[in-house]
Amino acid sequence: LSSPDSDGLSRVSDAGERALIERIRARLPHPPPALVVGIGDDAAVAVPDRGTLQVLTTDALVEGVHFDLRFSTPSDVGYKALAVNVSDIAAMGGAPRLAMLSLMLPPDTLLQTVDGLLEGLSEIAGATGVTLAGGNITRSPGPLIVDVSVIGSVKPRKILRRSGGRVGDAVYVTGRIGMAAAGLGWLRTSVAPPGGSHGPDDAALAECVLRHRRPEPRARIGALLGRNRAASACMDLSDGLADAMAQVAAACGTGATIDASALPIHPAAHAWFSSQGDRPGGQTPGSDPLTAVLSGGDDYELLFTVPKRRRGRLRAVIREARGVPITRIGELTAGTEVVLEQNGRREPLPPGFVHF
Amino acid sequence: LSSPDSDGLSRVSDAGERALIERIRARLPHPPPALVVGIGDDAAVAVPDRGTLQVLTTDALVEGVHFDLRFSTPSDVGYKALAVNVSDIAAMGGAPRLAMLSLMLPPDTLLQTVDGLLEGLSEIAGATGVTLAGGNITRSPGPLIVDVSVIGSVKPRKILRRSGGRVGDAVYVTGRIGMAAAGLGWLRTSVAPPGGSHGPDDAALAECVLRHRRPEPRARIGALLGRNRAASACMDLSDGLADAMAQVAAACGTGATIDASALPIHPAAHAWFSSQGDRPGGQTPGSDPLTAVLSGGDDYELLFTVPKRRRGRLRAVIREARGVPITRIGELTAGTEVVLEQNGRREPLPPGFVHF
Repeated sequence: LSSPDSDGLSRVSDAGERALIERIRARLPHPPPALVVGIGDDAAVAVPDRGTLQVLTTDALVEGVHFDLRFSTPSDVGYKALAVNVSDIAAMGGAPRLAMLSLMLPPDTLLQTVDGLLEGLSEIAGATGVTLAGGNITRSPGPLIVDVSVIGSVKPRKILRRSGGRVGDAVYVTGRIGMAAAGLGWLRTSVAPPGGSHGPDDAALAECVLRHRRPEPRARIGALLGRNRAASACMDLSDGLADAMAQVAAACGTGATIDASALPIHPAAHAWFSSQGDRPGGQTPGSDPLTAVLSGGDDYELLFTVPKRRRGRLRAVIREARGVPITRIGELTAGTEVVLEQNGRREPLPPGFVHF
Repeated sequence: LSSPDSDGLSRVSDAGERALIERIRARLPHPPPALVVGIGDDAAVAVPDRGTLQVLTTDALVEGVHFDLRFSTPSDVGYKALAVNVSDIAAMGGAPRLAMLSLMLPPDTLLQTVDGLLEGLSEIAGATGVTLAGGNITRSPGPLIVDVSVIGSVKPRKILRRSGGRVGDAVYVTGRIGMAAAGLGWLRTSVAPPGGSHGPDDAALAECVLRHRRPEPRARIGALLGRNRAASACMDLSDGLADAMAQVAAACGTGATIDASALPIHPAAHAWFSSQGDRPGGQTPGSDPLTAVLSGGDDYELLFTVPKRRRGRLRAVIREARGVPITRIGELTAGTEVVLEQNGRREPLPPGFVHF
């Protein structure tokens, strides 16, 4: 007899687990026929894509570590929790298919928070062809946690590993970098009203804030790169470009050189970090805007390598990339050094985002 | 240059994420050929079983909610985190194949705690044919959390749902019930030295404590029931027998009657709960040993229903059950009432374990 609004203000501790699962199921789109058993049984059952391998990934967003509800809405958090997993599948050249959602909720979490999480998750699920197949809900005595696993599919000979690149392969990156880190930087230094949906007046900086809240996984480009075998190695930028370059070079057993002048740094990100240099509490002493961009995480662009003989295939991918820039930023080199070349000077790449 | 021991006493915050992943990979058995890409890339890639459907489940163990490191060792926690997922796959009639491990670690977690988690998880993985394919590690500002997803396979017409039972089908349960709840009860009332490996002198009660720490998922019996299609519905007892019976009856659109005298209550569990009735802080007022057993969670036995015409098939399963008892405890009935019959009296089944 309560209105939908007052219902949303109830706590999950009053609703109970079954009611919560029923509420979630009622708000999801009708599952496709390939989902033979969906939410509500001991496990989900699904028909796999024929002739493919399984691609599996899992990634968690932890309140206070990966998100702050002063900076993001629950819907943003649900969106991002699935998006970061879709990004991992894309980085393998796969197509995401099914998601499992593991929610850990403090007892005083409002039902409308859960509704928001599901709304954002459903939005990106719909956009990337993912079905929420099942999951688990439990109480958290600590932070709110949204842990998602995604199962996708990839054709046997189309897998994009981190390790396939060879000396001389060119290094490319999708999109513009530094956006999410600049967006988070703005949120941290601005006065936040409650609700997590405020943003800067400047449109380009607002785009950066949106990228922090709702990363765009490069699902389409990853699948294209896998399908036409343009890339020899691939990884996503979850922990920043410097980290990804170091990881790919290590996996390939090569070094790498990045040309600083070629980096597709988003103009608003560059402006933001440049303005922060002298600010007390802005950046750590000695760091410059370029370092901030290279070690800033959460962009979820793809870094990949292309052998000379496959440049033609890459052009085909670029034609179908629908306006997402794909930029050559460097090359795999002999040895093991990962180097940034700037104004003729060569220095080691800065480290990426550190989780602990 | 540090010894293995002093190394194990380092904190994860000092080791860093990469070193932690490397440490985990080094301690796992060599992966099978079906794991095309394992730990260390953006996602894992595996060859699926031919001609099967995918079975997917996820379940988290949260410190302070599902385990207490005064009562269980890290190895017990790792074991249980995978075991509860294997139980879900078994309850669908499936075979577990791949696991994804999502670890959320407080920064002061010792490396030897992580080693213990992996050791226990590897033990049950080896025993049930599961390969740890990948995962994620992140910092937790709150409790230690071990969240596991398992992907299994099931033949298209061998799926065990909760919903297939019809009025007149007999209800069965595997094993002995009440063990895990009695074991946890003993742990909660005993004086625990640090380390989580103490136990009672009484061998039967010690068995109950072990069941709480290391549940035995009925992987073999679930697969047998699915394969020969003896069962019309099936569910595991994660939240207790009363809860499972209510869920299965609701899914089947039937009622159910449970015969109290037929319940395979473990003798030590019965003795334990009987001894606790008058104890201050022992049980809630008005509850009796039977109620404690029926609402006690964590037994991970299977509850399933068998149509009359399939009793012969069930006998074949019982012959292959390797000593695990399979007991008829009741029947699905017309209507929607779920009833406990005891000494000629009929009363509603008590509720199961409540998560919030």
